[in-house]
Amino acid sequence: MIDLRSDTLTKPTESMRAAMARADVGDDVYGEDPTVALLEERVAGMFGHEAAMFTPTGSMANVLAVRSLVAPGQEVLCEASAHIARAELGAHGAYSGVTMRTWIHPRGQVDLPMIQTIFAPDMGPFFVPTAAIAVENTHNFAGGAVLPIGDLRDLREYATGVGVGVHMDGARIWNAHVATGVPLEEYGAIADVMAVCLSKGLGAPIGSLMVGNADAIAESRIWRKRMGGGMRQVGILAAAGLHALDHHIDRLADDHEHARLLAEACGVDPTSVDTNIVVVPRTDAADFVAAAREAGVLVSAVGPTAVRLVTHLDITRADAEKAAAALGSL
Amino acid sequence: MIDLRSDTLTKPTESMRAAMARADVGDDVYGEDPTVALLEERVAGMFGHEAAMFTPTGSMANVLAVRSLVAPGQEVLCEASAHIARAELGAHGAYSGVTMRTWIHPRGQVDLPMIQTIFAPDMGPFFVPTAAIAVENTHNFAGGAVLPIGDLRDLREYATGVGVGVHMDGARIWNAHVATGVPLEEYGAIADVMAVCLSKGLGAPIGSLMVGNADAIAESRIWRKRMGGGMRQVGILAAAGLHALDHHIDRLADDHEHARLLAEACGVDPTSVDTNIVVVPRTDAADFVAAAREAGVLVSAVGPTAVRLVTHLDITRADAEKAAAALGSL
Amino acid sequence: MIDLRSDTLTKPTESMRAAMARADVGDDVYGEDPTVALLEERVAGMFGHEAAMFTPTGSMANVLAVRSLVAPGQEVLCEASAHIARAELGAHGAYSGVTMRTWIHPRGQVDLPMIQTIFAPDMGPFFVPTAAIAVENTHNFAGGAVLPIGDLRDLREYATGVGVGVHMDGARIWNAHVATGVPLEEYGAIADVMAVCLSKGLGAPIGSLMVGNADAIAESRIWRKRMGGGMRQVGILAAAGLHALDHHIDRLADDHEHARLLAEACGVDPTSVDTNIVVVPRTDAADFVAAAREAGVLVSAVGPTAVRLVTHLDITRADAEKAAAALGSL
Amino acid sequence: MIDLRSDTLTKPTESMRAAMARADVGDDVYGEDPTVALLEERVAGMFGHEAAMFTPTGSMANVLAVRSLVAPGQEVLCEASAHIARAELGAHGAYSGVTMRTWIHPRGQVDLPMIQTIFAPDMGPFFVPTAAIAVENTHNFAGGAVLPIGDLRDLREYATGVGVGVHMDGARIWNAHVATGVPLEEYGAIADVMAVCLSKGLGAPIGSLMVGNADAIAESRIWRKRMGGGMRQVGILAAAGLHALDHHIDRLADDHEHARLLAEACGVDPTSVDTNIVVVPRTDAADFVAAAREAGVLVSAVGPTAVRLVTHLDITRADAEKAAAALGSL
Repeated sequence: MIDLRSDTLTKPTESMRAAMARADVGDDVYGEDPTVALLEERVAGMFGHEAAMFTPTGSMANVLAVRSLVAPGQEVLCEASAHIARAELGAHGAYSGVTMRTWIHPRGQVDLPMIQTIFAPDMGPFFVPTAAIAVENTHNFAGGAVLPIGDLRDLREYATGVGVGVHMDGARIWNAHVATGVPLEEYGAIADVMAVCLSKGLGAPIGSLMVGNADAIAESRIWRKRMGGGMRQVGILAAAGLHALDHHIDRLADDHEHARLLAEACGVDPTSVDTNIVVVPRTDAADFVAAAREAGVLVSAVGPTAVRLVTHLDITRADAEKAAAALGSL
Repeated sequence: MIDLRSDTLTKPTESMRAAMARADVGDDVYGEDPTVALLEERVAGMFGHEAAMFTPTGSMANVLAVRSLVAPGQEVLCEASAHIARAELGAHGAYSGVTMRTWIHPRGQVDLPMIQTIFAPDMGPFFVPTAAIAVENTHNFAGGAVLPIGDLRDLREYATGVGVGVHMDGARIWNAHVATGVPLEEYGAIADVMAVCLSKGLGAPIGSLMVGNADAIAESRIWRKRMGGGMRQVGILAAAGLHALDHHIDRLADDHEHARLLAEACGVDPTSVDTNIVVVPRTDAADFVAAAREAGVLVSAVGPTAVRLVTHLDITRADAEKAAAALGSL
Repeated sequence: MIDLRSDTLTKPTESMRAAMARADVGDDVYGEDPTVALLEERVAGMFGHEAAMFTPTGSMANVLAVRSLVAPGQEVLCEASAHIARAELGAHGAYSGVTMRTWIHPRGQVDLPMIQTIFAPDMGPFFVPTAAIAVENTHNFAGGAVLPIGDLRDLREYATGVGVGVHMDGARIWNAHVATGVPLEEYGAIADVMAVCLSKGLGAPIGSLMVGNADAIAESRIWRKRMGGGMRQVGILAAAGLHALDHHIDRLADDHEHARLLAEACGVDPTSVDTNIVVVPRTDAADFVAAAREAGVLVSAVGPTAVRLVTHLDITRADAEKAAAALGSL
Repeated sequence: MIDLRSDTLTKPTESMRAAMARADVGDDVYGEDPTVALLEERVAGMFGHEAAMFTPTGSMANVLAVRSLVAPGQEVLCEASAHIARAELGAHGAYSGVTMRTWIHPRGQVDLPMIQTIFAPDMGPFFVPTAAIAVENTHNFAGGAVLPIGDLRDLREYATGVGVGVHMDGARIWNAHVATGVPLEEYGAIADVMAVCLSKGLGAPIGSLMVGNADAIAESRIWRKRMGGGMRQVGILAAAGLHALDHHIDRLADDHEHARLLAEACGVDPTSVDTNIVVVPRTDAADFVAAAREAGVLVSAVGPTAVRLVTHLDITRADAEKAAAALGSL
């Protein structure tokens, strides 16, 4: 079976496993795990931020990052199909008491005129003020779409001007970086806080990081514990992350190439595929998924009329070609 | 001073005060207040619903009504400038754990294509499903705009088709009814739950009602108590509401006429004024407010480039003409 | 029927109704209601505090007062049968995210050794620190028991020493004051924040106040709005409160005398009855309630083996004697 | 340095690391990780329950387990120094909206008369009903005290009689089992839901499990995701847990013996030491901690007048003897 359902499915490589097995560890609740400290410092540096904090999941990193900018009774603006709106089970409202309003863009992009239209200035204590604007890059439910750095810079300028924060859900920021060549630090410069993930394209088994300034991270360590995310000998997982940063970033270019190859086979314009996700419009989505499985390829229906293919570390060029052939004949 | 800042400013009339003074009362937490029972039954009936429940404010009625349809981790869709999104201090997130996503319409209208675009079907337990769609009629921040009954019926049909609830924030549903002639019961048929207000155009000092089916209301009585809204001899306030229903609905037509008169004086197309709210675009909003005050008229700035005038029970035709003259000369 | 179920059942007197009918009012959300301003200033002054705020219920006053001292993740200590623990539907946890721990006293009293045992100093960010200690005076579920001023002063000294706040649920503080002669100001000196109620012994139809310093009250006005308690022409209700303060405090001595008279008739030691509540141990509580009803007296079962009688404004001496005779013969 | 601060400090052994390195893994959010499935099934079986669920921390397991029994507006009863009350940052209130009331016992024991005193039956919708009683075995802040199985059985019988659930925080249930010989299944029979931990005495780097019936676990998987605990290739961590179950349970007897040896050296009656935690009363706690550090032993102050020593997997008999000698001379 060639499994194109998600890039969360990747299994640790032998060398990643070896790195985990020999990791130097300590109790991270006591702040004594040297490997997680190394990872946090390294990731913060990659994005030009002061500090970072390991979390068990990207959802927790997003919840804590948004919470650091938005108090109960304040709001975050985001695109209507953002992961924070659609796929985190409402934790931002249910656990952080955050209000959310959304703009709508078919490819999950920054739409500054729309943002300006709905932006709520502070009109006194009886209104909900906008405290942050969140973007997702690449944008998962928009098919791995990249947010152009120019748009992000305009957003940053606007947010600074009106005095609100910017959160970047960078679960797949590595894909954006590899696809565009924009340095990670330039993406980091857009955001006050970020969430970045080790367990999707990078292939680590577990782990994300919240990135931000030292105060936000220090305060978020307390909220991480409250959410049940204060783990102990985290170095085991951090070692996988460090290994992934060393070995699995550049190779994302292969995933992107494989994705375009699959797009072409499925009748999707490959130039519309920015990174490692292909959304194939199929009015027969459920049937297509079943037929693909028959043909040895696992894909997902995302709604009744769309199928999603995701390339990743465990898909070789040969796998991609084989899958393309199989799917192309359906 | 002629006070056009809000229709919440109305003071009870002498005859309303007399009705309150002679109200038959009991302890409503024990379910023993006959006057509030009468009011609740009457309002439920006006909208063709099974039951209704008195609340100290429209905000509480909205929060309880939305909560009755939307569990923590589920979402409500609404227009981006809805009162529930903008003016209830985030209570829907902070107290009910509700997620909110929004469509954007310059006049606060139902935009079915946009709603269909963002609607989230139930895709399994790890996604946020849409549980309700909320509309506001008339729409406060859209300048008292009426939502056409045809659009509402289309929305109802769509909501029923996809299996979600409809909440109507009817704080000013009486204005919509008087402006259009659409019977209240037809508005009631659109919604699973409603919030309607006695203390805006209707001129009662305090009070709103949540309207819905018997189960939703029974359960909401418990949540009302949890929110600190379980008051005792509520009949005093309910008597004002009953008096308002008897005497202050039809006269809203005067408010609407006064609003058009003011619109004309301020250079706003009076045919764009649906009910009792006029939004005047003024790049000098703060200065205009100050100058109006000098001229004996109180109005509000709603943002830096807009001024809002609201007509109500305490504004006579003479007041409106005087204010129109004063504002027209600015 | 002589109704001894609760002192919340009192109906406004004719003169109270007249005071309400002529009340000067304004929009309290705009801070423009003169009568509520007068009431708030007067009540704050009675307890020697800077400010006060009207709320629709005592539950809301308690929730807002505790919240002003205790952040999410911090805790309040209280006696295990306190109203805030037992009878506010968990709002302190559900809406304020507050942790509660309790000491146990059969008469709801301050038990300083127990409080010292469970008090949690600030041990760093991963532990729940005690932020406030709450007392209830008189204590409802302990049968209207008064908390001796000496104990309260010791508590205040202890709380100040360890740096935590004191909340006093003074729903029936007027009864404590009349029963003991301790000035209200001395009770006020114990507490950082208080909740006091107008609609129990004092006989107003609706309303309580949170009392505290100016900052706490200013901030709580925002939270009151978030809870749906920001009402409009509140002067109607405040006028009843002012009338009650003028006319219904001293007469509580009658309620207390009536309660002792009822106690004696029911075989309860009248010297154990501090104020207006009598708890009668009856293994046949439900049957007793039914038989009392037959005999023309309404009383409540509080659990399977206890019956509660409450005297109030609507119970004359003749009523009390008649009820005593009826209950004494059961 | 001999580190006796906590049993959370243990580092994975070489053979545990090897087990982790070769673990068979899959995406656990998709339910496809075979190793975590094995661990969950095995742990459920050990306690005679239907199902279990891996969580990143014991705090998350406790929060989800209590939540499965107690809805917002309901309450859990526990001993006043329970971990769920003191050391989980108020998550039960802040995230689950749970009310807590406590009984007080110097050794954290079940005190059935006190529980019966504060138990709140369902008295209708306006009161907070007791929904669960939580116990902690062994009890951390009571110095690793074991809860006798007889007391637990009495509690179970009482809870069943009054119709409420029992939660057991079994972070150190393994220590109770080894110290008493009571089979794990008998402890399991006491509780509707449990939390058990792999990363304390058992020496795994990360991980706890919630244990309960199939429905509770299925529902809790959704809440785990909402809390940000839905991790991916969890088999890496589960392999450490399986290894610990195979190799590190029986050896807890050594930890207990080492603890008694340390107790004796510090002037604490060793028969008062049930398991692996020794609390030493020292009026000079901070100084003692500093002096111990000088002498090569790390211990913790727990409050100003008590010092805590904890034995664990990384403390050999030689370490314990050396530490005993060093501490005995202070």
